Amino acid sequence: MRFTTDTSSDGIREQLFVLGEIPGALWTPDGPARPRPLILLGHGGGEHKKAPAVLTLARRLVAECGFAVVAPDVPGHGDRPVQEEYDRIATANRARIEAGAEPAPLLAEFHALVARRTVPEWRAVLDAVQRLDHVGAGPVGYRGISLGCGLGVPFVAAEPRVRAAVLGLGGAIASAAEAARITVPVEFLLQWDDERVPRAAALALFEALGSAEKTLHANPGRHGDLPAFELDGTLRFFGRHLG
Amino acid sequence: MRFTTDTSSDGIREQLFVLGEIPGALWTPDGPARPRPLILLGHGGGEHKKAPAVLTLARRLVAECGFAVVAPDVPGHGDRPVQEEYDRIATANRARIEAGAEPAPLLAEFHALVARRTVPEWRAVLDAVQRLDHVGAGPVGYRGISLGCGLGVPFVAAEPRVRAAVLGLGGAIASAAEAARITVPVEFLLQWDDERVPRAAALALFEALGSAEKTLHANPGRHGDLPAFELDGTLRFFGRHLG
Repeated sequence: MRFTTDTSSDGIREQLFVLGEIPGALWTPDGPARPRPLILLGHGGGEHKKAPAVLTLARRLVAECGFAVVAPDVPGHGDRPVQEEYDRIATANRARIEAGAEPAPLLAEFHALVARRTVPEWRAVLDAVQRLDHVGAGPVGYRGISLGCGLGVPFVAAEPRVRAAVLGLGGAIASAAEAARITVPVEFLLQWDDERVPRAAALALFEALGSAEKTLHANPGRHGDLPAFELDGTLRFFGRHLG
Repeated sequence: MRFTTDTSSDGIREQLFVLGEIPGALWTPDGPARPRPLILLGHGGGEHKKAPAVLTLARRLVAECGFAVVAPDVPGHGDRPVQEEYDRIATANRARIEAGAEPAPLLAEFHALVARRTVPEWRAVLDAVQRLDHVGAGPVGYRGISLGCGLGVPFVAAEPRVRAAVLGLGGAIASAAEAARITVPVEFLLQWDDERVPRAAALALFEALGSAEKTLHANPGRHGDLPAFELDGTLRFFGRHLG
């Protein structure tokens, strides 16, 4: 794990790093090193480790909860090289959708393909980050919506260190079997008028989660219209389960 | 409005009252009289103004938010006389359900009948209670689930003083048109495995609400299994909209 920058502002330390092929960002509270809860953030499609939505949530989790937060770039995103295979599939999918194919199953299949890389990558990121004195081996949470949900479901299912997860804006089609293996508390976000994820598919994914404690939060609006108060809810949810 | 008892414990004043034919309970914080937000609680079927669930929520709203809370007995409940008409309908409904009829439409029809009395009654309760110096004419919220949702939808639709509502464990069948007239923020509670309210009917009621801001909170479990953390959510919701 190689750090490329190390800065601090408003009591929040930000370190950019590269772990093997994976560029990532780590945020921690300034002050004495001690073990603390760690949230891994999975960014959305087209976003990256320092996209505005990621940065806002990361800084709030550090400042308001005292947690550590890590965000890796997904392959083909941020500082990672273009993935010709992914671009080829995306182009082919666009053509199939224009020819009348349902977008949701194509997207789910694509997420499953990318997750075969991100699940082991994110586990390696947890290994590396939890060895740092200012993070330590505290409880882990995961938060990802949209692409971050498609990649998060197999990650949370596979990784026993994750003790609570916020997921959403995703559908069930490829991941129902993995969702059933998730048993930790989940807060699941659904946009009632989501133009990308059919409502029935999102409800089916919530239904498929194996967790005894899971809460669906549905709000009116399209895929990108998540209300700001749901960020407050995410902080409270992680505070309740990891704090 | 005639008060029959006036007691105080743990900083919370409780007054039982009778307004015309309506017995009710009023809770307010001890201390100087001033206008404050007021929550009207609609109790569940078979419950009454001082049922444990009503009392717990009322005392928390007073102690943690500084609000006033009023809970009237629904006709045929608590200290009110038996309603032979309601009992006759309930008996007939049970027979029809045993003979194979769907329970949900029968329940919805019954709630609509009772609401023709409770809507004007609850408006009169607001009039009377808001004239008291220790309540005053602050913003009003409504909270009711199950029977309290069936009666609450027409009440919130009719009463412009209500500025935010927590509803749930109810279905759309009789009240979709009234739900569409509700425009205030709503938090809507749904039990995913509700044995009394079909999931599709509950989702349809959420869908029918005319509010620009409305959030569905769905949790696993049966009609009576609402998780305790949803009470925290109710307090935060009213704090955000009325506080």
